[in-house]
Amino acid sequence: MTTAKTPGTALQAMRDAAPLVQCITNYVAMNIAANVMLAAGASPAMVHTEEEAGEFAAIAGALTVNIGTLSPDFLNGMRVSARAAAEAGRPWVLDPVAHYATAFRRDAVAELMALRPTIIRGNASEIIALAGGQSAGRGVDSGDVVERAEGAAVMLARRHGAVVAATGAIDFVTDGTQAVRIEGGSPLMPQVTALGCSLTCLVGAFAAVEPEAPFAAAVAALACFAVAGERAGRDAAGPGSFGWRFLDALSVLDAHGLDAEARITIAAV
Amino acid sequence: MTTAKTPGTALQAMRDAAPLVQCITNYVAMNIAANVMLAAGASPAMVHTEEEAGEFAAIAGALTVNIGTLSPDFLNGMRVSARAAAEAGRPWVLDPVAHYATAFRRDAVAELMALRPTIIRGNASEIIALAGGQSAGRGVDSGDVVERAEGAAVMLARRHGAVVAATGAIDFVTDGTQAVRIEGGSPLMPQVTALGCSLTCLVGAFAAVEPEAPFAAAVAALACFAVAGERAGRDAAGPGSFGWRFLDALSVLDAHGLDAEARITIAAV
Amino acid sequence: MTTAKTPGTALQAMRDAAPLVQCITNYVAMNIAANVMLAAGASPAMVHTEEEAGEFAAIAGALTVNIGTLSPDFLNGMRVSARAAAEAGRPWVLDPVAHYATAFRRDAVAELMALRPTIIRGNASEIIALAGGQSAGRGVDSGDVVERAEGAAVMLARRHGAVVAATGAIDFVTDGTQAVRIEGGSPLMPQVTALGCSLTCLVGAFAAVEPEAPFAAAVAALACFAVAGERAGRDAAGPGSFGWRFLDALSVLDAHGLDAEARITIAAV
Repeated sequence: MTTAKTPGTALQAMRDAAPLVQCITNYVAMNIAANVMLAAGASPAMVHTEEEAGEFAAIAGALTVNIGTLSPDFLNGMRVSARAAAEAGRPWVLDPVAHYATAFRRDAVAELMALRPTIIRGNASEIIALAGGQSAGRGVDSGDVVERAEGAAVMLARRHGAVVAATGAIDFVTDGTQAVRIEGGSPLMPQVTALGCSLTCLVGAFAAVEPEAPFAAAVAALACFAVAGERAGRDAAGPGSFGWRFLDALSVLDAHGLDAEARITIAAV
Repeated sequence: MTTAKTPGTALQAMRDAAPLVQCITNYVAMNIAANVMLAAGASPAMVHTEEEAGEFAAIAGALTVNIGTLSPDFLNGMRVSARAAAEAGRPWVLDPVAHYATAFRRDAVAELMALRPTIIRGNASEIIALAGGQSAGRGVDSGDVVERAEGAAVMLARRHGAVVAATGAIDFVTDGTQAVRIEGGSPLMPQVTALGCSLTCLVGAFAAVEPEAPFAAAVAALACFAVAGERAGRDAAGPGSFGWRFLDALSVLDAHGLDAEARITIAAV
Repeated sequence: MTTAKTPGTALQAMRDAAPLVQCITNYVAMNIAANVMLAAGASPAMVHTEEEAGEFAAIAGALTVNIGTLSPDFLNGMRVSARAAAEAGRPWVLDPVAHYATAFRRDAVAELMALRPTIIRGNASEIIALAGGQSAGRGVDSGDVVERAEGAAVMLARRHGAVVAATGAIDFVTDGTQAVRIEGGSPLMPQVTALGCSLTCLVGAFAAVEPEAPFAAAVAALACFAVAGERAGRDAAGPGSFGWRFLDALSVLDAHGLDAEARITIAAV
């Protein structure tokens, strides 16, 4: 690890703080994302409407924005929240779900990128397309492996001064000057909807507690998913039994277990 | 118990009637609340839009209103529904989620309170703040124990002529002239999102069947959660396995088991 | 079977294609419907807003429209999507949830019916009411058995040139010239919210792969639910444990098992 704190230390600090995180996410993810946050020890608040989202962003420790079921109303809430988070000096995380699929999404993400997200989390196709490359993404599913997205992630990180996390079978996280790969998880995870969206929220929880160290925050959150996913996958017989086992695994994961089982390797940038 | 019917009798009556309940709730709660209602034996209908919510409220046995992911559109639906329920003489239940967090919520709840909810269900911080006190609430989580909210609950009940249920580790229910405490549940319950919101819907189901006895209705619904939660918690290994066990426990709970295991004690008012 | 392909062959073809399906469904169903689709092997995308729904419908293999938590904004998205699907020659499936309950729903469904859905899936009360009959439906629950809806289904199919699937304890599917009944499932299924809505999405997945054979597509999708539901019901202790077992059962269902266990009989029309 290139960061002073281990993921386990970061997990313990996040649990001790139980950070309030404003999550503007999609309708599919709302419930599972909130349950992931609670299982991990954070305090999620799904607050999206323009009339209060900006006010709330100023009291939350971090903001996460996910465009999965985007509409103009939600986009208005995202705008004011991202601005309020930036003004309050709070980190915010962008999840550009299938931004390449329609003009509405492309324009929305271009506008949100201009508001300077602290961290960007997406699948390989989303990261490649965000860097201007040709992705094989179709709908909300990635058509690319993360390995193909590593260059795009580094380019994006440098261009936008953000941490970029491309997640998949092997995750890749970079801030443009350093990078790691994280192995783990389970082949069942893509069969459970909105786990990536939920991970975006959890990245926000870690970033809330370590606002000055977004790279370490993203790595710690992804490591939690990798280890809890691996544990849950061992006993699951399918995506249904994986879902609840994953929440159980997140809730009992501790600093020692996380550091012992996380498989994080430094990558060249 | 200060009511003629036991919670078990009320549960049996609710199941026999399978009341149609209009639930205007938040995006996080929609699915789990509907599943809780079905497991308990009620018939939920999530109908919120202004164009039909009032018409629907007139045919439903009760209405429940929860401001968890409030927006102006939903608020319009809440207004017309609460008015229609009142005009039709149907009970309605208000769940003022985190109403202290933003001006938008505070104003919305003030307006909804003026429409005279039959029953108010909230966590301790919400009840304290609703009575004008200083709560330690943050985001959607209570920062106070229910014991601190008992005085506020009695004050609210008297001021508004409503039944008030403050729920937490030990619940407190009052109509201003009588009160009970209900013990049970599981420490895992706050780790599962939207169980409180789901309980609000179930309170509506009991109130639909006993519109003249909202105090007994609220007590019976809370007793169901306390007993089913206690049973589910015994075998759960975390919030994930608690979630489905809780639904199973609700579905097999019967009048005899409820009356045998409910721990309800009379409190001074 | 009156179709050349067996349900098992259709399932294998659907899995091999992993069709992208645009699902405009209700808030209650969003998560479970996406999980059902992923478990079965399809690729769902919940895209509803007018600003992009039409554009997306032109790239998806099929569209499904469900009016469960209808609002004017969603209705706008449904309109443009149904038109775009029709123009692109893609099948689309209508789920007229509780359309008899309010004027807003009745009008919306009349308008959507005029856009000529390829397949209509509903419970018995919805199908009876859609054909102009007097249903015993109340809220979102059917008050009628499917047997009573068979004549209405045939009439609807002939009048609108659509496949009609009336689902319940014994399903009935017809295109007006042929019909089958499908037995299976579990008495626990009506206790789990939004399984019918999820089935509508799965019908869309099969129709995407067999756009010229919507009758066979609907039969195959319903057969998957019947067999997976029957298997899941064997070990479930209630609706909670049924829910995840059903997803597991869908994910391991294969062509051989489906054809061996599906109980499909030809019915007179």
